[in-house]
Amino acid sequence: MFTINPERFLADLHRLRQFGVAGVGKGVIRPAFSAADIAARDWLAERMTEAGLAPHFDPVGNLFGMAEGQSLLVGSHSDSQPEGGWLDGALGVIAGLEIARAARDAGAPRVSVVSFQDEEGRFGVTTGSAIWSGGLSLDVADRQTDRDGVTFADARAAMAHIAKGFVDPARFTGFLEMHIEQGPWLDQAGEAVGVVTDIVGIRDMRITFDGEQNHAGTTPMHLRRDAFQGLARFNSLINERFRNVVTPRTVWTIGHVRLHPDAHSIVPGQAVFSMQWRDGDGDRLRRMEQIIRATAEEVAAQMGLGVGFGDMLGLEPVPMAARLRDALCESAEEIAPGRWRRMQSGALHDATNVSRLMPAAMLFVPSIDGISHAFAEDTGEDDLVTGLRVLAGAAARVVRV
Amino acid sequence: MFTINPERFLADLHRLRQFGVAGVGKGVIRPAFSAADIAARDWLAERMTEAGLAPHFDPVGNLFGMAEGQSLLVGSHSDSQPEGGWLDGALGVIAGLEIARAARDAGAPRVSVVSFQDEEGRFGVTTGSAIWSGGLSLDVADRQTDRDGVTFADARAAMAHIAKGFVDPARFTGFLEMHIEQGPWLDQAGEAVGVVTDIVGIRDMRITFDGEQNHAGTTPMHLRRDAFQGLARFNSLINERFRNVVTPRTVWTIGHVRLHPDAHSIVPGQAVFSMQWRDGDGDRLRRMEQIIRATAEEVAAQMGLGVGFGDMLGLEPVPMAARLRDALCESAEEIAPGRWRRMQSGALHDATNVSRLMPAAMLFVPSIDGISHAFAEDTGEDDLVTGLRVLAGAAARVVRV
Repeated sequence: MFTINPERFLADLHRLRQFGVAGVGKGVIRPAFSAADIAARDWLAERMTEAGLAPHFDPVGNLFGMAEGQSLLVGSHSDSQPEGGWLDGALGVIAGLEIARAARDAGAPRVSVVSFQDEEGRFGVTTGSAIWSGGLSLDVADRQTDRDGVTFADARAAMAHIAKGFVDPARFTGFLEMHIEQGPWLDQAGEAVGVVTDIVGIRDMRITFDGEQNHAGTTPMHLRRDAFQGLARFNSLINERFRNVVTPRTVWTIGHVRLHPDAHSIVPGQAVFSMQWRDGDGDRLRRMEQIIRATAEEVAAQMGLGVGFGDMLGLEPVPMAARLRDALCESAEEIAPGRWRRMQSGALHDATNVSRLMPAAMLFVPSIDGISHAFAEDTGEDDLVTGLRVLAGAAARVVRV
Repeated sequence: MFTINPERFLADLHRLRQFGVAGVGKGVIRPAFSAADIAARDWLAERMTEAGLAPHFDPVGNLFGMAEGQSLLVGSHSDSQPEGGWLDGALGVIAGLEIARAARDAGAPRVSVVSFQDEEGRFGVTTGSAIWSGGLSLDVADRQTDRDGVTFADARAAMAHIAKGFVDPARFTGFLEMHIEQGPWLDQAGEAVGVVTDIVGIRDMRITFDGEQNHAGTTPMHLRRDAFQGLARFNSLINERFRNVVTPRTVWTIGHVRLHPDAHSIVPGQAVFSMQWRDGDGDRLRRMEQIIRATAEEVAAQMGLGVGFGDMLGLEPVPMAARLRDALCESAEEIAPGRWRRMQSGALHDATNVSRLMPAAMLFVPSIDGISHAFAEDTGEDDLVTGLRVLAGAAARVVRV
């Protein structure tokens, strides 16, 4: 078995928080390829070396800490949302580092560590692991831009001087990822650990309504082609129409809206907005897509607007690998009997992509009040340590110590 | 009578368009205090000097071309929307310049010219004429900011080196403003001129809904406090509730929307948006305000959101001065018999503010397809000249030539 060192684990977790510290709560501002993100990865590479691992930056900024020979891969990502919490991603990376150290101390150095790049999607969604797993081609990714128009190609050039080739997935026997739940269920139930059964699928696309930009004082209401009014009507119609299709677990979000020209005195000539929906059932995701496209076209026709659909990101629901999932359950039952559950992940994770390459499984710890993707995100340190012990127990089972 | 020179008038109008030319149609990009705006005002000051007028920049960037003694003031504004047309404002300024030249040629140099600053509201609404007329204090205006956070005080400092004091309104016997209609009525009717009877009142305020920023995949719909959903519900409710209050002439617009953090994968924690409404009846404006405030508070309570109301801009409806309006009607009947009408102005104009200081009246020419506040704004040159002849005829009547 692996004996972890809670103090060493928590100290590294707090040290990592200093890279891009927001100064609000425990929040961090560490988007992919920002100065803070690159500095954090350099620091992680040093910790890996200290742990007897060989640091390896691949061409897209993924940082691996490689054990010799074949090994179990444990980790997550260390980039953050533009306004992120201190644990999202960072927790899984430092947990992997601590377990690799515990494995070495136990004389079984068969655990490698990874911090994937741009999981938070400055340039797409889980960009680094998507490219490594073959789900996203490097050519396509290089053309993707952030909201300021910076291309992924230009951003990753900042780390080109330390980059080596892509790591051969055959080096790894499986992947374990520890992450905050990012939802309310464990916290509300007072439970310490969630073993993920499957990760929901996601669809995400940009929709554009084109109307007619005009004067807000002199254009009569009946002659307007107001793109914002199109968005508002679309929103209320899909909220109605989804009722017959969704479950209490289904979610959909309009999180980004841009009007043009975005002025008080001008009837909006264009509205560009994001439509994202998630569910554990691929058929339901497809039914929702049909409703979204049909409703947008219907609203456009009714209101004399043009409508355009951007490329749709689509990721199917992914079940976790049985053997690894069972190891997590056994470890959870041993370390936190009666204080854990099996649950679905409503959030996308690097494990979604890695599962294309090897058996993958995930462990959740509670998010206080279910808050994440915000400075206020946090988890009790006792829960962090309990989660780490469960993960270490599962890792020991998998590498047979 | 005043004999205008159509070629000289149109040549100057096209020359002014070169300052901030957008390269799209005849569009211009000449916001208040931009380099293009300041260069255009310097050029206008030279034209005024050539016309025998004394150029005078006041402390807020209003440019007057002063005739000696008492005079009739004719003009508008030469700043533009961020994406503006070539005639909005510029037409009235060049028309004033041409009439001042015609007055001088007629041996009656009793016409002064003005180009007010920031009519298009980079910092507020009709800022320059509002300050000059006493409707807006300089202290308050100096603290107003544009969308990038630049203060009016900083912006006007760019012209401080050429600024003199405020012009004494007692120098002027009245104000005439020629402007594009910015609406569809004259164009649809094939008429050349509209004499404005009154200018509608306007209300404009910023409303903020505060919800809870959270993860768009893991936050169940029933636990969300989504600020964008608050905005959408508010929008549909006021559209319903206004039906019992408004007339076909009433207009209301949500033209600006900003979500925070404005990301695909995050439930919006905040929505800030503009609410603007206009009508010829002050009581109706007040009833609409009550509906807006009550509905926003109702939606916030229903959805667990916070709501905030910004300062409300309020301008009451303004009737045009009878004597000047009648002079415009007589001139229109003489020059364009059967091709003009009396009409209300749905747009706010500098004349709204100037009417606090002296008798003021306005003349409209058609807007092709009713388009304005857009690069596509345009008016037939024959209509521009007809409008100028009507305005010159009215000016001659007023200064008694």
